[in-house]
Amino acid sequence: MKKFIKTTALLMATTLLLSACGNLQNSSLSSGGSDSGNNSVQTTNSSDSSTYDVLLSNGKYKTSPISGLTAADNTNQFNSRSFESGLTTLSKDQFSTNNYVFQEGQILSASTVNDWLARKSKKNSTGLNPASNGSKSPNKRNPMYFQQMLEQDYLQKQGGKYKLAGMSIGIAMNKVDYYQKKQYGSTYQTKISKAERKAQGEKIAAKVVKRLRQDKDVGANIPIVVGLYTVAPEDTLVGGNYFQYSVSKDKSLGSWKTLDYQSQMLPTVNNETAISSSDSDAFSNFKSHIQDYFPNLSGVTAQAHYDGKSLKSLDITINTQFDGLAQVTSFTQFVQDSASKYLPTGADLDISIQTVDNQQSFITRTGGKFSSHVFNAD
Amino acid sequence: MKKFIKTTALLMATTLLLSACGNLQNSSLSSGGSDSGNNSVQTTNSSDSSTYDVLLSNGKYKTSPISGLTAADNTNQFNSRSFESGLTTLSKDQFSTNNYVFQEGQILSASTVNDWLARKSKKNSTGLNPASNGSKSPNKRNPMYFQQMLEQDYLQKQGGKYKLAGMSIGIAMNKVDYYQKKQYGSTYQTKISKAERKAQGEKIAAKVVKRLRQDKDVGANIPIVVGLYTVAPEDTLVGGNYFQYSVSKDKSLGSWKTLDYQSQMLPTVNNETAISSSDSDAFSNFKSHIQDYFPNLSGVTAQAHYDGKSLKSLDITINTQFDGLAQVTSFTQFVQDSASKYLPTGADLDISIQTVDNQQSFITRTGGKFSSHVFNAD
Repeated sequence: MKKFIKTTALLMATTLLLSACGNLQNSSLSSGGSDSGNNSVQTTNSSDSSTYDVLLSNGKYKTSPISGLTAADNTNQFNSRSFESGLTTLSKDQFSTNNYVFQEGQILSASTVNDWLARKSKKNSTGLNPASNGSKSPNKRNPMYFQQMLEQDYLQKQGGKYKLAGMSIGIAMNKVDYYQKKQYGSTYQTKISKAERKAQGEKIAAKVVKRLRQDKDVGANIPIVVGLYTVAPEDTLVGGNYFQYSVSKDKSLGSWKTLDYQSQMLPTVNNETAISSSDSDAFSNFKSHIQDYFPNLSGVTAQAHYDGKSLKSLDITINTQFDGLAQVTSFTQFVQDSASKYLPTGADLDISIQTVDNQQSFITRTGGKFSSHVFNAD
Repeated sequence: MKKFIKTTALLMATTLLLSACGNLQNSSLSSGGSDSGNNSVQTTNSSDSSTYDVLLSNGKYKTSPISGLTAADNTNQFNSRSFESGLTTLSKDQFSTNNYVFQEGQILSASTVNDWLARKSKKNSTGLNPASNGSKSPNKRNPMYFQQMLEQDYLQKQGGKYKLAGMSIGIAMNKVDYYQKKQYGSTYQTKISKAERKAQGEKIAAKVVKRLRQDKDVGANIPIVVGLYTVAPEDTLVGGNYFQYSVSKDKSLGSWKTLDYQSQMLPTVNNETAISSSDSDAFSNFKSHIQDYFPNLSGVTAQAHYDGKSLKSLDITINTQFDGLAQVTSFTQFVQDSASKYLPTGADLDISIQTVDNQQSFITRTGGKFSSHVFNAD
């Protein structure tokens, strides 16, 4: 088991917490009920009805003890946030942001989940990865299918106390299992097909729900959203996506619903075919246009996020070699103009302009509205 | 002469390029006139009437050749942007953003300004720092008064061509001159009083204007704004400020106008007295409040910017040890609530929330309106 170490750029951005213009009278801590005699319970008030209020237990934000636990190595840093944000998106359909309060998962402990993520063995009867068959050959060994797990709790106030009223579970399945034949040795790969990820993921999900239902705080009936997620391989430069989900309302899983999310790096690499050639062309035109006027750019890349063939959002990173205020300000205006001219109109945009050292400025377009900000000491 | 190497955080922020909501039909490149037969001239269109359109010569952004030239060492990275943004602020009073187009300074060359920044000597008759008197003693030597220079050009269209119609010059004066007695040796300091900075700066400004008027592109009559700036010492954790300025309309300088800008780090360090104890107390309350609820914060600091005793803006940096999406989102909401509750209402705010590696989110308040953004790959 290794703690996932998040080393790098989480600079791509999507959530725009809407401006609370004129709404500041609500921007205070609300005092909730109390969940036991001497525990004070509060929530943070979200100024945006599309995000959850968050429960603060004993006045503190509580993290989930299983956050960051993983079964095998994977250095792709883009998985971590999409695994989390994707589960929140699935949850919003079941647990309305107006009626539920959010807390990071508090039911599952680190030791439980460490056991579940490990291989099944005599010593570890609860392991959800298959027992080793002794082989170290990429195509003969039993790979680690199950890479990571995430719990999110959704609470409601009942009789003055916040009670667990819904839960979401993310189950991350490997597309590539990276392993060493000996400690500190070379890294080998076992590839796992889509059909295997689906079959193994469904089995793991059923066991997880069955086990969770035995926990007295979870009980027999609260809705549990279970999402199956594909972990993106190390060389893809985009994060993974959820590929199906189910809502359990009793001991078993509900029916599975298929998701068709895809992500792709632009410009495409390794002769990959573009998911949409018109989006890919639009991005190339945008890129050449800004590179014509501002030649000192080290890179212009995007993560394109699709639902089926429909482009939902573009997260663009522009690396510059300049950080002078006038130039950054002028460049930011120019990029915004170019984005509105060249990039597909329907997609949300998040454009980060940065040097090696620092974020210099960014631009967002959400629901058709642009906004931009230059970081500027004065 | 050393190139100023900008190594670090320009994360404090103030300029909010206003949202161009509904205004996108204007967000295209405007084609300007042409300044000679085969040079095409364009400008970037600012979507915000409080910022300048920028001239692109031959379709390219042109940087100033003197940008970053300095006379002596100073590792305080906060000077660089405040030197630039302060001059732009002074310029806006003279050169309306509606009537002038901006270009980084193109008149002064690097070799000219390198000579001006050096000591006067037999070989360097144009040097504006005093000749060496041979002493290496901190209190007996002639220090380097003049540290850095900045040129900004303001153009207007005349007969279909953009012509230089105004200029701004920043003259950065040392408060502390850092020097070595021998190469790679220890660093010593000569302190320079406010009166000396003023007297020396005024002399240098007069010479600079006289020399500029001899340039045929500048000519005898265009307004030249000259600002005198105090370079903040290495240990202050805030940038410097302009302390006086003058507008020249002929060969000589206009009358000097005093500026009363001050910047201070909060919490105050080295037993420094707060410029305003009520602002300092408000910031302490804000800081303890958020540290109560989110204990894993590595630092909460602010740069407070004053005009006289009046707080103009607070640039706050919060370093966290967490980067999970749910926690960052919740923390960002909480910080915004706390800022509106505890911080002085009149000041603009810029709050950067970051881990060691990356910017996680930020919050701004401009003209009383909050807006926030969480960086969030998905």
